[in-house]
Amino acid sequence: MTESSALLTDRYELTMIDAALLKGTHDRESVFEAFTRHLPAGRRYGVIAGTGRLLELIEDFRFGDAELDYLRDNAVVRAETLDWLADFRFSGTIRGYREGEVYFPGSPFLIVDAPFAEGVVLETLILSVFNYDSAVASAAARMVAAAAGRPLAEMGSRRANERSAVAAARAAYIAGFDATSNLEAGRTWGVPTMGTAAHAFTLLHDSEEDAFRAQVAAMGPGTTLLVDTFDVERAIETAVRVAGPGLGAVRLDSGDLPTLVRQVRAQLDRLGATGTRITVTNDLDEFTIAALSSSPVDSYGVGTSVVTGSGSPASGMVYKLVAHRDDHGAWVPVAKKSDGKPSIPGRKHPVRRLDAAGRAVAEVVHIVEAGDVPDDTGRDLLAPLISGGEIHREHLGPEGTRRAREHRASAMAELPDEAFRLGRGDPVLPTIFG
Amino acid sequence: MTESSALLTDRYELTMIDAALLKGTHDRESVFEAFTRHLPAGRRYGVIAGTGRLLELIEDFRFGDAELDYLRDNAVVRAETLDWLADFRFSGTIRGYREGEVYFPGSPFLIVDAPFAEGVVLETLILSVFNYDSAVASAAARMVAAAAGRPLAEMGSRRANERSAVAAARAAYIAGFDATSNLEAGRTWGVPTMGTAAHAFTLLHDSEEDAFRAQVAAMGPGTTLLVDTFDVERAIETAVRVAGPGLGAVRLDSGDLPTLVRQVRAQLDRLGATGTRITVTNDLDEFTIAALSSSPVDSYGVGTSVVTGSGSPASGMVYKLVAHRDDHGAWVPVAKKSDGKPSIPGRKHPVRRLDAAGRAVAEVVHIVEAGDVPDDTGRDLLAPLISGGEIHREHLGPEGTRRAREHRASAMAELPDEAFRLGRGDPVLPTIFG
Repeated sequence: MTESSALLTDRYELTMIDAALLKGTHDRESVFEAFTRHLPAGRRYGVIAGTGRLLELIEDFRFGDAELDYLRDNAVVRAETLDWLADFRFSGTIRGYREGEVYFPGSPFLIVDAPFAEGVVLETLILSVFNYDSAVASAAARMVAAAAGRPLAEMGSRRANERSAVAAARAAYIAGFDATSNLEAGRTWGVPTMGTAAHAFTLLHDSEEDAFRAQVAAMGPGTTLLVDTFDVERAIETAVRVAGPGLGAVRLDSGDLPTLVRQVRAQLDRLGATGTRITVTNDLDEFTIAALSSSPVDSYGVGTSVVTGSGSPASGMVYKLVAHRDDHGAWVPVAKKSDGKPSIPGRKHPVRRLDAAGRAVAEVVHIVEAGDVPDDTGRDLLAPLISGGEIHREHLGPEGTRRAREHRASAMAELPDEAFRLGRGDPVLPTIFG
Repeated sequence: MTESSALLTDRYELTMIDAALLKGTHDRESVFEAFTRHLPAGRRYGVIAGTGRLLELIEDFRFGDAELDYLRDNAVVRAETLDWLADFRFSGTIRGYREGEVYFPGSPFLIVDAPFAEGVVLETLILSVFNYDSAVASAAARMVAAAAGRPLAEMGSRRANERSAVAAARAAYIAGFDATSNLEAGRTWGVPTMGTAAHAFTLLHDSEEDAFRAQVAAMGPGTTLLVDTFDVERAIETAVRVAGPGLGAVRLDSGDLPTLVRQVRAQLDRLGATGTRITVTNDLDEFTIAALSSSPVDSYGVGTSVVTGSGSPASGMVYKLVAHRDDHGAWVPVAKKSDGKPSIPGRKHPVRRLDAAGRAVAEVVHIVEAGDVPDDTGRDLLAPLISGGEIHREHLGPEGTRRAREHRASAMAELPDEAFRLGRGDPVLPTIFG
């Protein structure tokens, strides 16, 4: 593990700089845009996450001696290029969708104005962060809608790369989850953490009762006891006997949940534990959460499906050069013409068109000249993230994460109701290039 | 980003230690095993990856002041437990499948002998590493089989979390990929890196010819030119004119590849560039690679599908307490009896049964007593990874990665031919508990 983020990069970003430096085109003023051509099949919207993490990674994007030695020893670039990399500090301007914003196909959610070499060197990092974090946030937002107000905890750390897990916990929180099992996400991003015990704790002890007594002794009767290690009915009886009717919660991690949850609720009520909550954690996703909507569940814990984007673990986001200045200072809009992968040349400025009631009706992507702001009464979707190399620090750390969670709530509130249907559908807003 | 890996952990691992310390059960000698109940649907085998990374993360698993402050400030555990965590160094023994080994449902690929608290505190980290790295290696191995000897490069960094990307590049290399685009994987794990230019490089310049000339000037005529930015046929003509018939390779990133590749090969041959290779990189997976087997492709670049496990981004691995000593020193085999999630109590010792020709015929998982080695002529699958707290350092770093890649090749060579069919099937070896 190293602190510099600079080698979290595809080799070709550096070889392009190498060749452009030789040609003298490396400092052509350029505009790069990040967007996706499609949402995952059947999804109606996506949620942007990763911005705050990205800005911190850009701050650490420095080619120090260790990085330069590797590049030199492996002849990745020429000596002149090593000098350029050694001096690299991002000096450009990045504007983008606020973290937590919803997005659609073609939404230009990040717009980078920089000399070509400075814009291209960040490509891999930008896409890595947004492709993963937004995949998690987009899946998590659907789970939050399915849970219809019941609290959700993210507990999928063990189903994701150990560092992805921290990003996933943060992205799920931004999308409306209430807590995570991941302690590093608590420390780094201020996400509330939760969790009490696994089956191993019960199995370690000579009896389930011993285990419950040990847990209640350490954590108090308000704790959550895991009741499906052996026999649920007997465990509930033991749990209430040990903790008293003030037992905080019981957790179910297996079985046919709709049936089991009703039985458990009835048993708890019979035992006087009417305030004891029921939390369920058995391989849930947005569909199984929705299927439990009429069951007396109090909260959900979600693992694999949220940290893997519920079937769509990467968001399909791309990062494209859309314009650059030529040697005479004129802006040249550009796009490749590859078969099946169209993109639209020229600098964009997106706004969300709202109706009189404040409901979103379209994603309007204006094609503009440098410095122009479109004459449009829609909500301006671009916020400053880095201006002339200076990071807007309100996006960073726990504070930025909290703001993103709030922004997600307000952006989601603008969407029409059909956005929240779980069945497959088209993007709920049309994207209009104008 | 912090150096300690200790908070890459679910909160409940620490609260279990907290309660066990109070009860005095934290130091009961215990055996934990990692395994999976199922392979991803239709897969015939899996490939273990992550071991070398895990051992380095365990070495960094230390609760320093920063970690302890967070836990104290958030009242995660009691003061006594903070003291225990502050002193924590893993003192146990871990044996497991060699990295690169193939595995099947029920294969106990990691066996941890340690006091309960020391075994449980590593659970999340162990599963995070193996669930992701093995998902990538298992998908990558199928792509390697489909490529039938043609070289493969991993280039999916932008489709995975920025740190996952490094692990993915390493796992794909272990599974038989030849190179990666990811520079950090090159530096940290010794994976060969590759890559030359993207469409942005062509679009930056006033003409495709200018771009090709700049690239050839920097990288020589042996470079790979990307030829599908505008019109492939014209680009090939330009490429050979600029670089000469000694042009190293052309890359195709779009279009109907079987048709296009034939046209490109014919055009290159007409132009005298008979040694110029063709590499293709357009959203490939094991199935599209197999479909190109009769096309004159020279190498493949694979992105999204390999870093996301080709539809199975987590391996479904779990980590279970299977035995512990009671207060009288007797070993107690344990397992939960939860509905639908069975596991088998007791310490295991796995061997791979081979026929007279050295072909694998079964995964045999013996249930043994502590210290016993089964009387079985099959290949012993357990290698020492950590002995009494001491890491076996041959598994670490680039050297460990190289050894894992070699072991993968020899383990795969034992498998029957039907293992390498891409269609859905059952695990190619039965797992026999005996």
